[in-house]
Amino acid sequence: MSQRFIPKITLVGAGPGDPDLLTIKGARAIRSADVLLYDALIGPGLLELARPEALLIYVGKRAGRHRRRQEEINQQMVAYARSHGHVVRLKGGDPFVFGRGQEEVAYARELGIPVEVIPGISSCIAVPELQHVPPTRRGYSESFWVVAGTTRSGGLSKDLALAARSTATVIVLMGMRKARAIAALFERQGKGHLPAMAIQNGALPDERRVLGTAAEIADKIEAEGLGTPGILVFGEVVALHPDWDFAEIAADRIAGRRA
Amino acid sequence: MSQRFIPKITLVGAGPGDPDLLTIKGARAIRSADVLLYDALIGPGLLELARPEALLIYVGKRAGRHRRRQEEINQQMVAYARSHGHVVRLKGGDPFVFGRGQEEVAYARELGIPVEVIPGISSCIAVPELQHVPPTRRGYSESFWVVAGTTRSGGLSKDLALAARSTATVIVLMGMRKARAIAALFERQGKGHLPAMAIQNGALPDERRVLGTAAEIADKIEAEGLGTPGILVFGEVVALHPDWDFAEIAADRIAGRRA
Repeated sequence: MSQRFIPKITLVGAGPGDPDLLTIKGARAIRSADVLLYDALIGPGLLELARPEALLIYVGKRAGRHRRRQEEINQQMVAYARSHGHVVRLKGGDPFVFGRGQEEVAYARELGIPVEVIPGISSCIAVPELQHVPPTRRGYSESFWVVAGTTRSGGLSKDLALAARSTATVIVLMGMRKARAIAALFERQGKGHLPAMAIQNGALPDERRVLGTAAEIADKIEAEGLGTPGILVFGEVVALHPDWDFAEIAADRIAGRRA
Repeated sequence: MSQRFIPKITLVGAGPGDPDLLTIKGARAIRSADVLLYDALIGPGLLELARPEALLIYVGKRAGRHRRRQEEINQQMVAYARSHGHVVRLKGGDPFVFGRGQEEVAYARELGIPVEVIPGISSCIAVPELQHVPPTRRGYSESFWVVAGTTRSGGLSKDLALAARSTATVIVLMGMRKARAIAALFERQGKGHLPAMAIQNGALPDERRVLGTAAEIADKIEAEGLGTPGILVFGEVVALHPDWDFAEIAADRIAGRRA
């Protein structure tokens, strides 16, 4: 019997959560998928785009089994492409931003499977943006530095200490649980007054955020009970948030009460 | 006569050029626009989404008149919202990445016009990604730093010198014409062998790119005649480009001939 399917893999970035922030090209890929391999953080709205006969397979990682699972995902992806045709690998945010999408692409490419990448809206820019906070602005900051808060070893990335010394806006993904240690890096540079923001579930209906200085932000995250997944932003640009003045006044009041 | 229109402004990121990299939400906004204010670098495909009766107004900046034009754009945007209703401000890439979108949002907000931001795919991540080069990868780089190559004063951003010293992948927007001076910052840090990439017209049919070390990249850009708009990437991750080995071998041959 001749081969019935032409194997093909498309990596699609799903964006930060709102299904309408998927690209037109990404939506078209999902609609044409024979198999959809999807992660955690992929909303049900996106899966509904798939054809009724498409296979939908959850491949979200389980804590502590990252390496094993990544190999399994790579193998599954290629096996399904060979057995079913067009595999769409749907990943939250942008598949290349701390997403190991490049490893999946390289694996497929080495095995001779045609592979396409469709970028997605990355939370690192979009989540602060949806709060009207830009990564840069003239007079505030000329650059932005995106760092993962959690490294594989469990420690803080060394890049974070250098970032805290720079004039860049520092955007930390996967850093909510390490907010206190990260904020301390800025305080150590005499930047306790630097505006900071923490956002949980960015771009989703249950989005939550706190504003405060680098010195305050960890206490505020704790007081409000913010958890993962989350994004931290450190930089003068945070003062452009429409509620910043209010947050500052409230903080002054608290400081006044404490003094 | 009562007011016929409800003024509203939506900033929409058009993405890096391919009209299919627009978001579903962005497309919907364009379709509902009464007035579309658009920049240079916006492809005709996107404008065709607008209703036939919508006003299409080009507000691309002219060199040397940035400040004046920005004020005019802000005023036009608000005036059209008041006279026509829903104004969509369509900007290339993501409207908040070196795009002054936040200034437009703040201006409208201060005048009491409801304003929404719809993020776009930013070239800084997507253009290298479409070449299968990720901003980070474990074992290569833990963070990425996005810097504008051109500052308002015409000089290099001070952040670039610090970025060249860091372990971050450094992504430079609007730096093609300063490629030699930027690459020299890396050479001065003993990073002449760092992989580098330059891409002109990323994500467009006439995309062009060169690969080489930091020490070579400016010569290669010149030899190939790459111009603006362009993106530069400096970092070990560039060695993940599918053609990197070939580029290196070719460079070795040239070096061999020169020696």
